[in-house]
Amino acid sequence: MQTPLDYARYDRIRPLRWTGDVLEVLDQRGLPFAVEHVACRGSDEVAEAIHDLAVRGAPAIGIAAAWGTVLAARGVSAADGGQALAHLRPAMERLNAARPTAVNLAWALERMRRRLRVSGADWRDALQDEAARIEAEDLAANRRMGELGAAMIAPGSGVLTHCNTGSLATGGFGTALGVIRAGVAQARIARVFAGETRPWLQGARLTVWELQQDGIAATLIADAVAAHLMKTGQVQWVIVGADRICANGDTANKIGTYALAIAARYHGIRFMVVAPSSTVDMATADGDAVRIEERDPGELMKLGGVRTVADGIQAWNPVFDVTPAELIDALVTERGVIERPDRAALEYAFGS
Amino acid sequence: MQTPLDYARYDRIRPLRWTGDVLEVLDQRGLPFAVEHVACRGSDEVAEAIHDLAVRGAPAIGIAAAWGTVLAARGVSAADGGQALAHLRPAMERLNAARPTAVNLAWALERMRRRLRVSGADWRDALQDEAARIEAEDLAANRRMGELGAAMIAPGSGVLTHCNTGSLATGGFGTALGVIRAGVAQARIARVFAGETRPWLQGARLTVWELQQDGIAATLIADAVAAHLMKTGQVQWVIVGADRICANGDTANKIGTYALAIAARYHGIRFMVVAPSSTVDMATADGDAVRIEERDPGELMKLGGVRTVADGIQAWNPVFDVTPAELIDALVTERGVIERPDRAALEYAFGS
Repeated sequence: MQTPLDYARYDRIRPLRWTGDVLEVLDQRGLPFAVEHVACRGSDEVAEAIHDLAVRGAPAIGIAAAWGTVLAARGVSAADGGQALAHLRPAMERLNAARPTAVNLAWALERMRRRLRVSGADWRDALQDEAARIEAEDLAANRRMGELGAAMIAPGSGVLTHCNTGSLATGGFGTALGVIRAGVAQARIARVFAGETRPWLQGARLTVWELQQDGIAATLIADAVAAHLMKTGQVQWVIVGADRICANGDTANKIGTYALAIAARYHGIRFMVVAPSSTVDMATADGDAVRIEERDPGELMKLGGVRTVADGIQAWNPVFDVTPAELIDALVTERGVIERPDRAALEYAFGS
Repeated sequence: MQTPLDYARYDRIRPLRWTGDVLEVLDQRGLPFAVEHVACRGSDEVAEAIHDLAVRGAPAIGIAAAWGTVLAARGVSAADGGQALAHLRPAMERLNAARPTAVNLAWALERMRRRLRVSGADWRDALQDEAARIEAEDLAANRRMGELGAAMIAPGSGVLTHCNTGSLATGGFGTALGVIRAGVAQARIARVFAGETRPWLQGARLTVWELQQDGIAATLIADAVAAHLMKTGQVQWVIVGADRICANGDTANKIGTYALAIAARYHGIRFMVVAPSSTVDMATADGDAVRIEERDPGELMKLGGVRTVADGIQAWNPVFDVTPAELIDALVTERGVIERPDRAALEYAFGS
């Protein structure tokens, strides 16, 4: 029997704080050194915080957009939710356009729209209630996924994760990092490795810091070390999040995930994707249909504000890739675990 | 028929310059912005330049160590080479210990020792002659490998390389980068991609700069982009150097090489290792016997001199990995091409 998890001990960080009239965004660009909040008083400030990566992580982006919609409602007067929606549409479209890959963003905004459509004169309270629900449900889903995922891991295992999928990236606890938190708490996980995740260094700046806040020791590696690490026998699972899961199980996630999945398969190491069901996009047939976000090549040319590359050099900076379902051993959502996900299994679990 | 290669056009950089009494080392730590030389006047300065990465790249390290031996001979008076060798041994051992992975270092020093053993009163001139030969033979070998390797590449191909294996890493022209230079000159290679090569950024700081000096456009990518790049169909070959090639063809090279080889095989992309025969170490049976150099974990914690990781974080920084022979499609040395290298083929080509 497992002791119930002491969530307070293993989960101290939150990326967003709703004060009642301001969305305070923990500015992840300054971490781990500057722990500062950006106060967003309007939806365009939230869209900017999403676009500029002050807040990042697919679930956290969705939650931020929900609160952004609440902020957009400030200046609006309307007799009911339907009328309000007409006014809010431009602001919600700007929120939706702030990042292209994460499906949770569109999903959260769709929930806000639906709630508005069925709201009467109390639409303003309904909107705020819906945003709070999205956030609370995300935290609950992460705790559930943490337990489901950890249950698959044999005691004494080592795990490797990529990017940041933790409390910082979600409403709390994290997705892949939630499984790691639960696995460490239950002594199933004995070793945690984190890839630094170039170019934005989410692993180096965020993941190992976030785990450190909760007293979990993790070892940082360069992304290119992962295959060598696998060969040493120190890891038994690769555990990652997702930005979009297609109808056939193909999974878009941070650039580098695909390489980890290939190397894991080569070494017979298991590969787990952990994401809330809001990440599943049954309208996207497979990975070929996913538009891969490319960011400024300049992100590869500066380190700590110092230019490292000669003038006139070209660079290519796609920030997501697609891992085919065939390389995924387990897909964990709050609804359960799908082993060896494929189109049939996803249709059964998530089809309408 | 191929037009003969205009080497002067495609090869402008040299990492080492012997002035007759000083070894000028192009300090690669400052590149691409500061093009400055460290003047080494004694063998311990050369050992320091090797250890501190002012000069890097397995063949260049070997050449530097040869000139370091010439410098060590300065204060020595001896009747013949054998006597001189007894005096030079401590300095040569310090040179040999400056980096552990590259076999060329030991190989170059062994050549210097052998030459001393057969030298009489003219041992000082013989030593200098041997160092000059090692350097000139390396350049000639690289040009030969460039032609052999390029001949395998179909016109219009794209290639991906890793780390820096160019003129900077050798006596000139480069190993893997020599194949790329020759392939571009012959219009076989239409697209060049270079991984940035964390943590030391040899790809970002050195490779794309060095190619730029010769008018060859290359596109920089984060290391973790490679698998995604392969999926797009833009590359047909991965071309890398080697720090040590074992008797069965297992190849130690810059960390990240192994992951590229696994991903290349998964995508049906061919994988070429290019290195002078001095890199082949028939005394090392296979990759399991290679000691992998680990450097300061602090290299993962600073960017451009600015700390990026919270205090108290652990990191693991192995800087080489081993690619098993089974993932190598072609091994190119100046003696010829071995396709699908294995123990029997290497014994035939390099056995004593």
